[in-house]
Amino acid sequence: MRMYDLIEKKKRGGVLTDQEISQMIEGYVAGEIPDYQMSAMMMAVYFQGMDQKETAALTLAMARSGDMADLSSVRGIKVDKHSTGGVGDKTTLIVGPLTASLGVKMAKMSGRGLGHTGGTLDKLESIPGLSTSIDGDRFCRIVNEVGIAVIGQSGNMVPADKKLYALRDVTATVDSIPLIASSIMSKKLAAGSDAIVLDVKTGSGAFMKTLEDSIALAREMVAIGTEAGKNCCALITDMNVPLGNAIGNSLEVIEAVQTLKGEGPEDLTEVCLHLTASLLCAAGKGDLEACRSMAEQALQSGAGVKVLADMVKAQGGDESYIYDTDQFAAAPFARPVLAPADGYITHMDTEGCGIASAMLGAGRVRKEDSIDYSAGILLHKKYGDRVRKGDILAMLYSSREELFEEAEKRFLQSYVIGDRPPQPGKRIYARVTSGGTEIYS
Amino acid sequence: MRMYDLIEKKKRGGVLTDQEISQMIEGYVAGEIPDYQMSAMMMAVYFQGMDQKETAALTLAMARSGDMADLSSVRGIKVDKHSTGGVGDKTTLIVGPLTASLGVKMAKMSGRGLGHTGGTLDKLESIPGLSTSIDGDRFCRIVNEVGIAVIGQSGNMVPADKKLYALRDVTATVDSIPLIASSIMSKKLAAGSDAIVLDVKTGSGAFMKTLEDSIALAREMVAIGTEAGKNCCALITDMNVPLGNAIGNSLEVIEAVQTLKGEGPEDLTEVCLHLTASLLCAAGKGDLEACRSMAEQALQSGAGVKVLADMVKAQGGDESYIYDTDQFAAAPFARPVLAPADGYITHMDTEGCGIASAMLGAGRVRKEDSIDYSAGILLHKKYGDRVRKGDILAMLYSSREELFEEAEKRFLQSYVIGDRPPQPGKRIYARVTSGGTEIYS
Repeated sequence: MRMYDLIEKKKRGGVLTDQEISQMIEGYVAGEIPDYQMSAMMMAVYFQGMDQKETAALTLAMARSGDMADLSSVRGIKVDKHSTGGVGDKTTLIVGPLTASLGVKMAKMSGRGLGHTGGTLDKLESIPGLSTSIDGDRFCRIVNEVGIAVIGQSGNMVPADKKLYALRDVTATVDSIPLIASSIMSKKLAAGSDAIVLDVKTGSGAFMKTLEDSIALAREMVAIGTEAGKNCCALITDMNVPLGNAIGNSLEVIEAVQTLKGEGPEDLTEVCLHLTASLLCAAGKGDLEACRSMAEQALQSGAGVKVLADMVKAQGGDESYIYDTDQFAAAPFARPVLAPADGYITHMDTEGCGIASAMLGAGRVRKEDSIDYSAGILLHKKYGDRVRKGDILAMLYSSREELFEEAEKRFLQSYVIGDRPPQPGKRIYARVTSGGTEIYS
Repeated sequence: MRMYDLIEKKKRGGVLTDQEISQMIEGYVAGEIPDYQMSAMMMAVYFQGMDQKETAALTLAMARSGDMADLSSVRGIKVDKHSTGGVGDKTTLIVGPLTASLGVKMAKMSGRGLGHTGGTLDKLESIPGLSTSIDGDRFCRIVNEVGIAVIGQSGNMVPADKKLYALRDVTATVDSIPLIASSIMSKKLAAGSDAIVLDVKTGSGAFMKTLEDSIALAREMVAIGTEAGKNCCALITDMNVPLGNAIGNSLEVIEAVQTLKGEGPEDLTEVCLHLTASLLCAAGKGDLEACRSMAEQALQSGAGVKVLADMVKAQGGDESYIYDTDQFAAAPFARPVLAPADGYITHMDTEGCGIASAMLGAGRVRKEDSIDYSAGILLHKKYGDRVRKGDILAMLYSSREELFEEAEKRFLQSYVIGDRPPQPGKRIYARVTSGGTEIYS
């Protein structure tokens, strides 16, 4: 195999064989194939695409490029969930404990926030003492005992994806559906769970802005998971509006706990119930309807709160923060954002809301930035709401008062206030399984 | 300017500005833009193309990336010719002396052979003593005195093209018309002549296999030359058949001398007369018809032989080889290739003929290979000829007898013998000027 020939083949629209793809990935990780050839290949893939078989082969080759998680000591079926990222997306903190409370284990590897999106690790680390750097044995022990643990990716997992993503990030080859799908799924396959539920966000705050692209990505990922022998499905969920009302790390933990008590915002609760039902279903707990009922009952019982608290404790955190969220330090400074006019909120630039939160200190603009855990935004008014001039649209929180001016400006730009009420928003657009795609009306 | 943004822009089909292109080339030559970004850009250009303005800007930026030839001490109009490369193409050795004999100076920088195509420098160096490494002052002096000199590219000329071509060569991004055109024309512009005649080969032995692509490349190059203020035109000439009968270095010099005496093969003579007429015309010597007459008269007079001999002498070579080509050492071994059947030669894989010649030692398979100057092929039968089984198709020559078997096999594969005479071949397909394209019927 010469890399040159593979580039030429893909450039002309050819289909790479499994062997060609695995040799390419091995050669790239080993440093035998230089970046300049791989970036030309990635650009050729951007234009010519990859079929499902190629994408699956790429994913498997990447998953196998380094260590694979060993969950063999975890008893029973292990499920995993992945969100493509959004604003206010604290679903893992709700769905994980709910699912675990129903006897289905989740051994989850999460990421950190970057840009306008938050990350589960950062949110959890707003709880004093909690660590997300835990070795494999302890991780499996916690999953066995509590039913869930959430850690960061450790050791030398999926080095091919790390190297390839870093290259794509600087060569304008990120936005290719087979490349996005293989990047996500390689990490999921290496993480070792038996079933995977994907939450593909769509809309102004999501990486995929259109429903069409979101469904295409979901189909690609479900096909890869299925090909790899995993029980795999995807929900397409809304990210035209931030999910729930809280944006920011400790603010989101607090909202997650409220939701686990059955007191969360309606949109967040609905998405979490859907995801939980899909996870239970993927774990073989019953059909979707039955699983939905189980999820609703678990929510009403509040059983998830204890699971979350137990997980926090097992990971070294102070679980009393979960039982009494008032313990979270409030941000030293708060400022209301007022509606500039009467009307209805007809559009929210959700990415803009996420950026405003990051500007307050809640997120990272660059990878090396540190995080202000108490910073963020609590939304008082969202898409579709009627407002009067001077109403509080949201409260901004930060440890640095000087950050408010710019962040407020950015936040206000994200709201469009019009004369008439807009079409009602949607929570869930579609469900994609290996059997097909169900579009929700 | 961020290179990332330029890649993204081109990927989406955008048009790069002159400033963006010149900054990109400067940054690349300075090592500030890494190969992996440039190869992604080249692949994006392969798919999205470049318009004429972009291609001209790229060419100028490359031409200016290093030293430019200073021909100011050469008196009168300087013409240059460029062939896109073929098999048996010894036209520079004929056209240059003919043109110079008519008072139009040619200060020519040539290249070496690689793969199936030969190079003028290698052919000239088959003449004992001749050097093609000559400094700029001496080069200009020879051009002033003799009317022509042929040297290799020296010093730090067009480093952007060297670097970019080396990258394209390993990333499967060579075959893009704007990139080919800018690569060729950047060297022509840096070489400093006033008028440029391009010989774009088309057919089985050419880089451009189809007439359509050849015309597109010619138009692109003529547009660039015209934009840069040069009197520029192109001929599309045939490379479905080797040009002339000789392939190989000293064999081609001998055939060039025969042609300058008016005793050359008809196809080679015809192409040389066309090219000479175009060069004279581009130098302002008259209209095409008048220039053609001048070229024919010069050929009949044999005046070019003395010019070639004078050039050889001025470049340190033994000019007696030109006056008496029997002095060239014959190859130690010769072998006839016999027709395997009765019929007509209905197709020649000209690239295959070139490869067979290289396999005999006449060319380089790799850049570092040395050359056997006496090796090569003399064709006795060509496209359209009638043959009987056992007729000599060609004579093969080499210094190493063990090379014959494989080379003969390759050579024979290049001939197709059929029952009926094929359509007559063409020499010249079209002429492209800044005013338009004339297709010859």
